[in-house]
Amino acid sequence: MGSISPQLAELDASNFKVTRTTNFRDVPLPGSPEELSHSHCTDHMVTVRWTDVNGWETPEIKPYQNLSIAPTASCLHYATQCFEGMKVYRGYDGKLRLFRPDCNGERLSNSSQRSSMPGFKPDELKKLVGKLLQIDGPRWLPKNRPGSFLYIRPSIIGSGPHLGVQVPKEATLFIIAVPWPDFTNTTKEGETTPSKGLKLFASTPDTIRAWPGGFGYAKLGANYGPSLQAHGKAKAQGFDQILWLFGEDRQVTEAGASNFFIVWKNAQTGKLELVTAPLGNQLILPGVTRRSVLELVSSRLSKPVGSLEPVEVVERTFTIDEVEAASKEGRIVESFVSGTAYFITPVAMIRENDTDISTLGPDGEPAGYAALIKSWLGQIMYGKEAHEWGYVIEDEEN
Amino acid sequence: MGSISPQLAELDASNFKVTRTTNFRDVPLPGSPEELSHSHCTDHMVTVRWTDVNGWETPEIKPYQNLSIAPTASCLHYATQCFEGMKVYRGYDGKLRLFRPDCNGERLSNSSQRSSMPGFKPDELKKLVGKLLQIDGPRWLPKNRPGSFLYIRPSIIGSGPHLGVQVPKEATLFIIAVPWPDFTNTTKEGETTPSKGLKLFASTPDTIRAWPGGFGYAKLGANYGPSLQAHGKAKAQGFDQILWLFGEDRQVTEAGASNFFIVWKNAQTGKLELVTAPLGNQLILPGVTRRSVLELVSSRLSKPVGSLEPVEVVERTFTIDEVEAASKEGRIVESFVSGTAYFITPVAMIRENDTDISTLGPDGEPAGYAALIKSWLGQIMYGKEAHEWGYVIEDEEN
Repeated sequence: MGSISPQLAELDASNFKVTRTTNFRDVPLPGSPEELSHSHCTDHMVTVRWTDVNGWETPEIKPYQNLSIAPTASCLHYATQCFEGMKVYRGYDGKLRLFRPDCNGERLSNSSQRSSMPGFKPDELKKLVGKLLQIDGPRWLPKNRPGSFLYIRPSIIGSGPHLGVQVPKEATLFIIAVPWPDFTNTTKEGETTPSKGLKLFASTPDTIRAWPGGFGYAKLGANYGPSLQAHGKAKAQGFDQILWLFGEDRQVTEAGASNFFIVWKNAQTGKLELVTAPLGNQLILPGVTRRSVLELVSSRLSKPVGSLEPVEVVERTFTIDEVEAASKEGRIVESFVSGTAYFITPVAMIRENDTDISTLGPDGEPAGYAALIKSWLGQIMYGKEAHEWGYVIEDEEN
Repeated sequence: MGSISPQLAELDASNFKVTRTTNFRDVPLPGSPEELSHSHCTDHMVTVRWTDVNGWETPEIKPYQNLSIAPTASCLHYATQCFEGMKVYRGYDGKLRLFRPDCNGERLSNSSQRSSMPGFKPDELKKLVGKLLQIDGPRWLPKNRPGSFLYIRPSIIGSGPHLGVQVPKEATLFIIAVPWPDFTNTTKEGETTPSKGLKLFASTPDTIRAWPGGFGYAKLGANYGPSLQAHGKAKAQGFDQILWLFGEDRQVTEAGASNFFIVWKNAQTGKLELVTAPLGNQLILPGVTRRSVLELVSSRLSKPVGSLEPVEVVERTFTIDEVEAASKEGRIVESFVSGTAYFITPVAMIRENDTDISTLGPDGEPAGYAALIKSWLGQIMYGKEAHEWGYVIEDEEN
């Protein structure tokens, strides 16, 4: 239950069944309503069933289609569900790449077990995503469009017809791929110039995203649905995301669909720090992009880069009061969020109670750290820099 | 968003479309594998779609069937889902009854809004359930089987194909009915005599069910999936349910699928109290059975009933240490859980760390309060006592 049992078949991407579509779907244009729907998927999908009798069955690649789900399935009642967000990138060398897919495989296996569903060997996920993209990549990310990407959504759901509250006896892993708008273009509907960054709305004490001993660290559906009410209210007031605070001291945790970073001058030492919430208390999602930001900054920004001063990476609990004080004292240099959907996007301000906290630099602009980190990551994702984080999907053999 | 808008059509059970099955399903025998599957539904189901453009559409009653759900539907990724548990009872007067269905309607509307989906007028739910049972009742709960029941599961899911993290633009209310084992028969598999009550496993500090500012008070899928891992471990060790503790002082909250009650002698006054966790901090589910227990005990057990002494109803925060002390001091008279699935079932013991706490009376038996309350409730449910809590479903006109 929830772990890899030796008696049950393991997830194995080497043996799979393919049914190709004969009815190809329209590929939406960038910026089209179809793309903005976040739901116009590619021609095929992957499904793999698991049962507590047999383990993981043979993966199938088949035409994209609705799932037929029993009204008694536990994924519809008990939120037995978890997912990953990944992207596949069409490189400037013509190759398709995933970014650190082993990290997604490991996290999905962990999330699945946290929601009492089966784990698997993390490597198999990237292989399955690779198979899907070998088939759909040429049409949906053509070689003549380097610099484009698709969003990949692997999900595991409790799919068996068992209405009793119990550990699922059946689960289904499915993987879909979908054209996705580029959120790093911060020009919003009705605006003619790009905004300087996202506007975040700090959560109020009556709504808390996660708690120690809970599941904020796992990518479970259960972290999202209950947060949408607050998210919807913030959106209606013109904000982009909730910044989730925790505890009586109002610790800054994460922004729901992304991790939050701030670059500020330490009040004591005067040195620049890149600060983000720690993973130890299990409140925040251990983002793959978050981890990559921390690793890149540690290794590449210990010395000046161009006009940018070195920064020290600091993972620690910090509070919204500290952010407000730093803003008032002109110590904030920049802030940004990171995530697969939001990539690296500057944050312009935080509304906290009735106070608007500017989180740009003293001159009202981001200093450029986010842009630099984004460009470093982009070079790896799109194959301009050879790097172990880029996983190349080989062209299909035929 | 999440509230009843005047522009959108409200849920209206008075106008509905019926498609009758021509392929009737087998009615499982009590105790059969089909019944024990908790998933062998009746011949028909109710579905009602809601969109943010039109509001609630015309309810449909149609043959029970799988749902066709887009792989991008938010109910599969973001746990936009909530449900109710109800039962329909075949009375000794030959009539079908629901028990306080207005309470379920109100709670489902609240849960739906807590998960950023639409609300509705609570009355409409009982009318929809009534329509379904007018059709399926005669075959599945025949008049010659008074004292039998079906479990009813109304659910609302975010059904639209929208993979972006956002307030759902489409939702579906569905209602299914299913034969259900009688959990109050405490004779377990492999046992020949009934056990004296459930065995509960107290949660450990690394796993909590709910927190202040969270959603423990709403019947969201998100409260269940993340709790199944602990539930599965407890079941594997021979326990029936987790008893969820909260906070450094290890407050007793609820048992996951049921509310928890204890009858003990107050250490100071020596008087008998029926104690259960309060609703104010929003940690526990406001159970319909819980509320009914409290109301019945307040009104009917302020004086002795037979050999049972009067008890005072106390809703307050209490800790597992208090329970352990009361057990050691011989002050516990009885304990039980309440809920639609578990009805009223005595609790024999609680495992807390390495300590087994007996929660039966000093003579190792339940004192009889649970049995008395259960019989009072049963008389209302099965029409032996005329009571405003019993809602009669009229026979279908034809």
